[in-house]
Amino acid sequence: MIITEPTLLLDEKVCRNNIARMASKARNHDLRFKPHMKTHQSREIGKWLQEEGVSAITVSSVKMARYFVDAGWEDVTIAFPVNVTQIRDLDKLAEKAKITVLVNNHSAVRILNESMTQSINAYIEIDTGSHRSGLSPHEIDTIGELIDAIKDSEHIHWKGFYSHPGHSYSARSEDKIREIHQAVVKQLRDLRNNFDHLSNDFEICIGDTPCCSVGFDFDGIDAISPGNFIFYDLMQSQIGSCDISDIAVTVACPVVDVYPERDELIIYGGAVHFSKERLTMDDETIFGLAAQRSSGKWQKLSPELRITALSQEHGTVSIESGDLKNIDIGDILIFYPVHSCLTANLLRQYRLVDKEVILNQMPLLRNS
Amino acid sequence: MIITEPTLLLDEKVCRNNIARMASKARNHDLRFKPHMKTHQSREIGKWLQEEGVSAITVSSVKMARYFVDAGWEDVTIAFPVNVTQIRDLDKLAEKAKITVLVNNHSAVRILNESMTQSINAYIEIDTGSHRSGLSPHEIDTIGELIDAIKDSEHIHWKGFYSHPGHSYSARSEDKIREIHQAVVKQLRDLRNNFDHLSNDFEICIGDTPCCSVGFDFDGIDAISPGNFIFYDLMQSQIGSCDISDIAVTVACPVVDVYPERDELIIYGGAVHFSKERLTMDDETIFGLAAQRSSGKWQKLSPELRITALSQEHGTVSIESGDLKNIDIGDILIFYPVHSCLTANLLRQYRLVDKEVILNQMPLLRNS
Repeated sequence: MIITEPTLLLDEKVCRNNIARMASKARNHDLRFKPHMKTHQSREIGKWLQEEGVSAITVSSVKMARYFVDAGWEDVTIAFPVNVTQIRDLDKLAEKAKITVLVNNHSAVRILNESMTQSINAYIEIDTGSHRSGLSPHEIDTIGELIDAIKDSEHIHWKGFYSHPGHSYSARSEDKIREIHQAVVKQLRDLRNNFDHLSNDFEICIGDTPCCSVGFDFDGIDAISPGNFIFYDLMQSQIGSCDISDIAVTVACPVVDVYPERDELIIYGGAVHFSKERLTMDDETIFGLAAQRSSGKWQKLSPELRITALSQEHGTVSIESGDLKNIDIGDILIFYPVHSCLTANLLRQYRLVDKEVILNQMPLLRNS
Repeated sequence: MIITEPTLLLDEKVCRNNIARMASKARNHDLRFKPHMKTHQSREIGKWLQEEGVSAITVSSVKMARYFVDAGWEDVTIAFPVNVTQIRDLDKLAEKAKITVLVNNHSAVRILNESMTQSINAYIEIDTGSHRSGLSPHEIDTIGELIDAIKDSEHIHWKGFYSHPGHSYSARSEDKIREIHQAVVKQLRDLRNNFDHLSNDFEICIGDTPCCSVGFDFDGIDAISPGNFIFYDLMQSQIGSCDISDIAVTVACPVVDVYPERDELIIYGGAVHFSKERLTMDDETIFGLAAQRSSGKWQKLSPELRITALSQEHGTVSIESGDLKNIDIGDILIFYPVHSCLTANLLRQYRLVDKEVILNQMPLLRNS
């Protein structure tokens, strides 16, 4: 494999293992598995999910919904507060597939109902602690009124509740994730009990990778929609969602300059490849961590090499031990990304390790 | 203008003013003006530079060099430590145009000389304080030996010295930028004096937007290659390089959710649109600041709206005053980006304000 530019490598085996593990967990807990496609944005990887029995998916934009509907997916949740400026696109999509959006207020109900000609499904989003979007599970009256408004509408079908417990990203251990997960599940179970009289077939779906990865109590939950689990990354490993051996993507970067006197080297690989997502490791801000491949697996490179600064196309890599004598310009180093979703979004194609195959993501621009 | 997705808006007039101001400054100081194209990555915007007399440009990758050479540019500096894994591409490019790379060590000299069939120009990069890449200006012997090796080579022509004083980004006032600039210029002038005996036609080029924007002493400097100045952004405004009215790009985003009780709203506009570049304003981390357009100009929206959190496609916008009653879902808000280079790199096309024209950037993938 010849690498001359920052290149996103994908270990298909690790990725398929991640898929199989989550699919099996969903089956064991009697959960619908509706994986989020925003992490990989690839029809080909979508097929790997299909092979594990997935028939419904989650996406983060109308554009992404269109890309997957055009590839044949028939049940797509756009897990985003409905963007009413795209209502025509939504209406067209709803002709071809079963589309679900998040509806969090009466303005959205009114606009959807006035402008849709097709039927669309709506989850009400519940803020179980992330404080990004959604209604508080304690606002029972407000939620009840919103359900009523949806039920009164002609074009919107109330599907249930959706929650992305993004506050699980603050965890730094499996135990802490489980503590957050239990609190989330309890809030949603109470909510279910509050609205059980309305319908017996509404669905409650939760969507974050940490809780879906290590939570064990899903009583009262009907569906899960994690995304990042398909690749994982350094951040998930630090949160406690996965082992570092579960990370399915790395970025290969040419070494372009070496500075032994300050224990640093420069790679071709910057913010336009890794993103500026960072994490703190031993009180140091890092943007990536070097890996090595041996016996068909990635593992941490020893001694440790960390990306400690990124500009647009340069990465500064620091080594602790002072031992840079084995690295020269033209060498290729590989790095686990801090946040695989953002790194994949920038690099937009995958090179499979062990195969000379490139998988493309959806086109970024509609007219390209 | 209909906006339904995060859209990069470009004010051509402000952009052309930025170009004209920098071109005029270069002429007044007798400097060659070799603007960096990495900020805009667009042939069309390249033409605006051409119209101001620009004939030599700077880029950050071989891919970007190829894109601009294919558009007719004949003098291109790849301001990056030469990536020897791309030597065949470099050789092909050097057939078509005058190509200059940064050569910072003897390995690079040896590999270039062994593998190039065409002539290539080399700047030696000088680290005037950014501590990213380049040789210390005090390592006179090391620099001298490297110049000798280049001069002894068959295919490499020594062109002079290049420095990107990226430490100017730590400034927070014009005075501080000028202090850094003076120190940079002094180091390079001393370097010139040290090597004046070798040649009388080598060139010294510096490339950061803060110093090029507000520095006034360029004695001993021959060329400048700023990039970000073409758009500027919130970061440059905070550094002291520009006024906020000089910012030529904003991002238009639909409002998708409004939370008056916590003085926040949610926009369709996240890390995959703005990038995760951040700055600190009044002790708060922000990812963008709302603008309004009136009388054909952008200015800060009052009361102030700040993007205070970004996930993949969501932005959380905070307002101080508690006054959200005039904003509803479906409204479009516009934001100055923190770092226009990274935001433009993600959005990849510009919509001109006042004209229904879209300018595309270079294709991201070679095979796309």
